[in-house]
Formats: sequence, structure tokens, C-alpha cells
Amino acid sequence: MTYYQKLEQHTKKLSRIHHLSAICSWDQAAKMPEGGNTARSEAMAELALIHHELSTAAHLAEWFEKAEAESLSAEQKISLKEMKRQWKKDNVLPAELVEQKSLTGSKCEHAWRSQRKENNWHEFSQNLEKVVQLAREEAQIRADATGLSRYNAMLDLYEPGMTCEKIDEIFGQVKTWLPSLIQEVQAQQSHDEVLTPKGPFPAEQQKTLSLDIMSKLGFDFSHGRLDVSTHPFCGGVPTDVRITTRYDEDDFTSALMGVIHETGHARYEQGLPEQWLDFPVGQARSMGIHESQSLFFEMQLSRSKPFIEILAPLAREVFSRNNDKSLSTENMVLFSTRVKPGYIRVDADEVTYPAHIILRYEIERDLIEGKIEVADIPELWDKKMTEYLGLSTKGNFTDGCMQDIHWTDGSFGYFPSYTLGAMYAAQFMAAMRREMNVDNLIRERNLQPIFNWLDRHIWKKASFLSTEDILREATGETLNPDYFKEHLVNRYLES
Amino acid sequence: MTYYQKLEQHTKKLSRIHHLSAICSWDQAAKMPEGGNTARSEAMAELALIHHELSTAAHLAEWFEKAEAESLSAEQKISLKEMKRQWKKDNVLPAELVEQKSLTGSKCEHAWRSQRKENNWHEFSQNLEKVVQLAREEAQIRADATGLSRYNAMLDLYEPGMTCEKIDEIFGQVKTWLPSLIQEVQAQQSHDEVLTPKGPFPAEQQKTLSLDIMSKLGFDFSHGRLDVSTHPFCGGVPTDVRITTRYDEDDFTSALMGVIHETGHARYEQGLPEQWLDFPVGQARSMGIHESQSLFFEMQLSRSKPFIEILAPLAREVFSRNNDKSLSTENMVLFSTRVKPGYIRVDADEVTYPAHIILRYEIERDLIEGKIEVADIPELWDKKMTEYLGLSTKGNFTDGCMQDIHWTDGSFGYFPSYTLGAMYAAQFMAAMRREMNVDNLIRERNLQPIFNWLDRHIWKKASFLSTEDILREATGETLNPDYFKEHLVNRYLES
Ligand SMILES: [Zn+2]
Ligand SMILES: [Zn+2]
Repeated sequence: MTYYQKLEQHTKKLSRIHHLSAICSWDQAAKMPEGGNTARSEAMAELALIHHELSTAAHLAEWFEKAEAESLSAEQKISLKEMKRQWKKDNVLPAELVEQKSLTGSKCEHAWRSQRKENNWHEFSQNLEKVVQLAREEAQIRADATGLSRYNAMLDLYEPGMTCEKIDEIFGQVKTWLPSLIQEVQAQQSHDEVLTPKGPFPAEQQKTLSLDIMSKLGFDFSHGRLDVSTHPFCGGVPTDVRITTRYDEDDFTSALMGVIHETGHARYEQGLPEQWLDFPVGQARSMGIHESQSLFFEMQLSRSKPFIEILAPLAREVFSRNNDKSLSTENMVLFSTRVKPGYIRVDADEVTYPAHIILRYEIERDLIEGKIEVADIPELWDKKMTEYLGLSTKGNFTDGCMQDIHWTDGSFGYFPSYTLGAMYAAQFMAAMRREMNVDNLIRERNLQPIFNWLDRHIWKKASFLSTEDILREATGETLNPDYFKEHLVNRYLES
Repeated sequence: MTYYQKLEQHTKKLSRIHHLSAICSWDQAAKMPEGGNTARSEAMAELALIHHELSTAAHLAEWFEKAEAESLSAEQKISLKEMKRQWKKDNVLPAELVEQKSLTGSKCEHAWRSQRKENNWHEFSQNLEKVVQLAREEAQIRADATGLSRYNAMLDLYEPGMTCEKIDEIFGQVKTWLPSLIQEVQAQQSHDEVLTPKGPFPAEQQKTLSLDIMSKLGFDFSHGRLDVSTHPFCGGVPTDVRITTRYDEDDFTSALMGVIHETGHARYEQGLPEQWLDFPVGQARSMGIHESQSLFFEMQLSRSKPFIEILAPLAREVFSRNNDKSLSTENMVLFSTRVKPGYIRVDADEVTYPAHIILRYEIERDLIEGKIEVADIPELWDKKMTEYLGLSTKGNFTDGCMQDIHWTDGSFGYFPSYTLGAMYAAQFMAAMRREMNVDNLIRERNLQPIFNWLDRHIWKKASFLSTEDILREATGETLNPDYFKEHLVNRYLES
């Protein structure tokens, strides 16, 4: 057996352990009764330990060295490179730091649940300082290992190849036009009369609608399921993708748009190249590309007028509301593209969302690089919210810097993926429109050419190409935020 | 750390791996979409391998030896003994034999699916011969390791301490009265006019009824769930018990009685002593005792007249059939206690079921001991079916010796557990009746004292006592099949 083959065997083993861990995590969120949690968490930790021991085995360094000297096909070379990238990521942090991060993050998040309600920044910030301290240690170790700056080393975990220099430039551009665009859109929309659909919308009927839409969007039910959980997610494994939603009987659009979003994630997973699924090279390229697929489905596709022409009648039918004017296509278009600055990121619309991300990016970048401290966050938050969205969060920590919990598990570097994803999605759609009349295809209920394009240019590419090369191959250029601006202007100003 | 503590830590690790395997097995049967199966099976096999490697580690022999010399509490001594029993069971078979068994069994079962339909004994028997050959090898190895006879060594896996000498005596007694009892019951029942409830009984309503009964029977939904699968089972782990059923819209009683049966298994699991759950001593004593709990719930409790007085009105209500005479208490009592010899074991009633088990026991015992060969089975099957139940299976392999698939996975020695369980259940009920008026408690809807008795005498005993000692402690004597006879006579002849 060659060393490359040994590494493949080893990686397959890790992939299988990950499979069981993914299914049990899904179960924990979607099916497990409360009383099962303690034993389950212990069992999951044991499996994580087994995974860790295998993935950090001492002999692997030699295997990689020897495999690199072997004669390999072009695909195998890329696969080996991705296995090695994964191995390095898994091996660079000392075990104590991983444990410290996990404990400190859990403690911070647990306390946050009541501290947020009490608007108690003072106590929360003490925990967050420890989280940031550990995140800086992690960033330093990753920086030393990669030769990148501290924050860039963190970014590289979620969007390999991306740097804060590039993001600064891109987000810097967005900042020049976004605040005024938001104001213009609001001024224009102030003349619209929009009806808010009024519940109750029974969960069972929402589920029927969700399953129908998933199937129209090509979700493969022989390789996946839809279930319910408190926090919607896309989990499982590519051969068995588990997406979840939560039905709000007062507002069916939240579950519906959520399901469409997760279906985008799911189709990417289901579309990955079958023969490489056990290997890093066969997995999703990055968090940004993942989000580009969910946002392509949710924003580019499903909030478009031609698609709402499909959605609205289905909703009227499933809820037996043929004469409900709030469910007319015209009103649903207005309702689905309503723009309104708000404090809470996860409730934000497509136009204001990037403002939330830019704010978080600028703060976390400077936190990790040591240019600011935790104590500086509230003032910065208030200043940026005011500047980007015209909303002050002075003294309001609950709806300000205490609303998100992403940082407590040390995921610094993750936030930009959301807006990078939105930009990739707009750029993909623009390229697709050059090749086919997307709106007509939707009107003809012929979505297959759209999915085929994504499958060919993104899903089947998995991690064989870098993010930049995926963009270049699919759209003819690297990331160009103009497409995103163009999309927003077209959808929100010229309708 | 003492060696006993090391063994506890090791055993906990095995228990946690088992936890994930149990949840993923449940998922595979109850939730997994078809397309997930290949990757899932590979992942499960990987976890089984990890479990096997851990449980057969070379250093364990020394650990056990040293732990046995340590100063231990009485409970720890029993726990150590049970850990060792488990370790020996896991270690005695050579890896190739385990693999051979698995491959040969899968092949035999897979071919059986079509061979059974085609009544093709000739080809099936060739596969079965290989299965029996491997089972004999296994039995010989286990016999050498335990000093028991070959079949007794297999029995010991499912009902530790049980021997074919004891079973021969007990089943021998049953054979003296069962065939004539069956005839008497049939003669007496021939005068009854019984209505068969006619469907459709919608699955949703059956589910509502099932959940209601489970909760009346004390199933703890914070530590378990009810779902649907093709073959009903009780799975999961004691802190999170997953039972399943299958709804037949033509016959609600099959799912209902199935759910009650699995609830009996589940309550045993949920009632095991919390602080010992990770260790063999904290687990169910035996398959026979496990079945005694499911049959206590299903047969002793739920087919009793006072319980049907609860069930029947609930059924009428949930199906909105207040005037359906087939759902009257009187008719439900007759319907639930109908006795009719048939070919198929899994469809058999309480009275004829033991005949099916005795037949299988006598054949598998002689097969394993080498007194008969596979080629002898059809003739023996026909002879015994005719003798015990008055039904000939000559030339009818499909409904004769090809109906069951238990033997293909090498589970020789398992069949007696079913009837031993029925006997234990009857003996437990008789003892309970000496302490409390069970029928009155049921009529008063006060089942708690019944559950408390089972909890105290069986569930909390886990594997701290042998099966014999559980019986002795709970009922004052060892297995006495007279209670089972008495139960059948009381229920089926003197009503
Ligand atoms: Zn997403
Ligand atoms: Zn059972």
C-alpha cells in the first residue's frame, strides 16, 4: 500500500466517525428528549476524543512527507494537499487550549442567556475578555503556523485564501454606497401599501408547503430529510442531509424562507462529487461558498418576482386562503423585499444585512489584532450602528453587542462569510443570466438548467478549486462586489 | 488509580461508543432515507471495529487479574464479575469467525427473502448448513471456554445460568398439558360470537392512542420517544429509549399491543439503576427477563379484562366510534384473547405461542449438539407442528421452517427466552397478586403500585442478581411453570 493510500484509508476512518457524530448531533437538536442530554454529551465528547487521537497520530507527518514524494494523478495531488490542510488545522492547537476554549466558551454562553436579558454588559464583558484572550492565543498559533497575520489566520479557517486586506477593500467600497442606498430604498418603499399576512398558519400546512418547495427546488429526499429544531440548520452528511426549520404559526414566511435557505445548503452537499465524499477535497470549498448557495436559493431565486409568482399561489392553496389579499403575488413581492433597518442581525433584510456584518467584521478584526479591547466594543457598536443604519445602541447592550453569541465559541473570522456569500451569489447569478434567461426559466417552471449550472460550476468542483478559481471558472473574474450592488439596485430601486 | 477504576473508565468508554451506535441504529431503522444506507453501514462497521479493538485490548487480562486482588465493596465485586463476563464474551471468538458468521448470515438472509417466497428449501438449506456449521464452531469455542455443553454455552449468552437440562424439564411439563389446553380453549371459544374491528383506523389516531397508553403505562417521555419503523423494536439507551411501531390501518390492535409490549421493554430500561448505567452490572439481566417485562405489560396487564375496560373506551373515543360494537369492552376482551393455532410464530396468540418456541428449541438444541442435520429439519418441523398444534407443514417450507430468520445471524439459544419470559411474567404477576389486589388497582386507574413492585424487584436489580435470584427474591421460589399454566387456564378456560 502506498502512503497516499494509507492516508486515504486513515481519512476514510475519520470521515466515518464524523458521519456518526453528525447524525447524533442532528438527533440531539431535532429528536432527543431532554433527559437524554447528559449521557449523549458524554458520548459525543468520547467520539470527539477518538477522532482527535486518530487525526493527531504522530506517524502522520511521515506519511504526508512520503506520500508527497509518490507519483500521483493531478486529482490525487489536490486531494493530498487538502488532506494535509485539514491535518494541519487539526494539529496546530495544543489540547489544553482546545479544552480551555470549549470550557470558557460554554461558561460565557451559559451566563449570557440571563445576562443578555438583564442588559448586563459589565459581567458579560468579563467572560468575553477571557474568550478573546484565548482567541488571540489561537490566532497567534495559527499565524505562526501559516505565516499569515493573526486575523487572516482565523479567516483562513472559514474562507481559505481570503485576507482582511481584500475584505477591507471590498467592504470599504460597500460602505461608500450602502447607507445611502438603504435610505433611498426606504424613501421609495414608504409609498407602498404592504399587508402583513395574519396567522394562524398551522404548522402541518407549513410543513406541506415546505416539502413541496423543497421538492420543486430539487432536494433529494432519498438522501435527506426535513425536521423541526429550535435553531434551524443544515446537518447530516452529503449522502443523508438533515435540514431543520421551526414553524411560527403567526408568520409562515420565516419557516418558508428558512427552508429554502437550508435547501440551498443541502443541494450543495447533495451535489458534491460522490467518489470523493470521504475526503477533504470532496467537501464544500468554504463557508462563504456554502452561504453563497443558500443565499442563491433564498435571495437570488426565491425572492425574485417570477419565483414569488410560484410561491404565492401555493401558499394560498395550502392555507386555503384564496381571497387573502396579503397572499397575492403583488403583496408577497412587496412583503418579501421590505427593507427596514433594525438592531438584530438575524432579523435583517437583504439590504441592511451587510451593514451588520461589516460592523462585526471591523470589530472582531481589531479585537484579534489587539488594536481594541473588549471594553471598547459598546462605543464602537453604537458609533457604527448609527453610521451604517442610523440606529443608536447607547446603553442598549441586549440589542447591541450582546445580541450575537458567535464569538463565544471562538469563531472569530466567520462573520464575513455571510456577506461574501451574498456577493458570490450575486456574481454567480449575473454570470448565469449571461448564459440563460433565468426569469423565463422560472416562469416556465423549468429550474433544471439553473441547478445544472450550479452543479457544474460549484457543487461538483467541491474543494478541487480555490474559492478564487471557482469564481474565475464560473464567472470569468474574481470577486467583484459590483454585482451585489447591481442586484440590490435592480431589485430594490428600479421595481 | 486502581485497576478496578481503570476498568470502570474503560467500560465507560465502551458504553459511550455503544450509545452512539444505538442511536444511529435507531436512526437507520426509523429515520434514515434509503440513499443514506451505504455510507451509514460503513460508518457503523467502523465504530464496531473501534469498539472491538478497545474491548479486546491485550492489557485487559492483566487489569482484571489485578482488580480482582483489590479491596472492593460488595457492589463493586459484582460489577467486576459482570465486566469480566462481558469481556470474556467479547474476546472468546476469533476475529475471522466473527467475520465469517456475519458474511454467511447476511448472504443466507439476503437469499432467503426470495427463496422463502419461492418455497425453495433446497437452495436455502445449503446456505443454512454453512450457518449451522459456523454456529457449531462458535458453540464449541464457547463450550471450551465455559465448561458448558455446546448448546448451554449458547443459551448462556441470552439467559445466563439457564441450561437445556432445566428447559427440557420445564418445556417437557408444558408439552404434557399445552396441546389439550389449546383444544379445550378452542372448543369453548367456538361458542363465542366475536366481531373483528373493521378499518380504516387512521395512523394519526392510532399514534394518539399509542402515546396516551404509553403515558398511562408510565413511559418517561423525557427519556424516550415513539417512532415508526418497518420492524418494531425497543432501542436507544436507558437515558433515551427509542421504541418503534408500525400502524396497520386495517387493524389498530397490532400497533397498540406492539406499543404496549415495547413499553414494557422500555420501562425496564428506563428503570435500571442510574448510577450503574455505563456498566454491565447496571444493564438488563437477560433476554428472558427483558421479555418477561414486555410480556408482563402486554399479556399479564393489558389483555386482562380490567385493563381492556380502560382500553376499549379510549379506542372508541380516539377513532370517534362510540357505537361500534366491535369496540365494546366485551367484544375487545373476546377479540384480544382469541386462540387459534396457526403456522406463523410472530402472529401466534398467547396460548399457542409456546408451542412454536418449544418446536424451535428442540430443533436448534439438537442441531447445535450435532444430533440432527439441517436436512432433518422439514420432517421434524412437520411432525412437531402436527403434534403440538395439529397443523401439517409437509412441503410447505414458506410457512414452516423457512418462516423465521433468527438462526441466520447465529442467534441459536435465543428462542427459549420468549417462553421463559412469559413464564417469569406469570410468576411475577402471581407474586404481585399475593401482595396487592391488582385488578382493583387497575379498575381504580392506580397502576403506580404495580410499577413500583416491578421497579423494586426487577428493574433496580439490573444484573446485581442472577435470574434465579431475581425470581427467588421477587416470588419466593425459582422458575415454576405452574404459574404460567394457571394464568392460561384462568384467562382462557374459566372466563
Ligand atoms: Zn446559511
Ligand atoms: Zn419483546
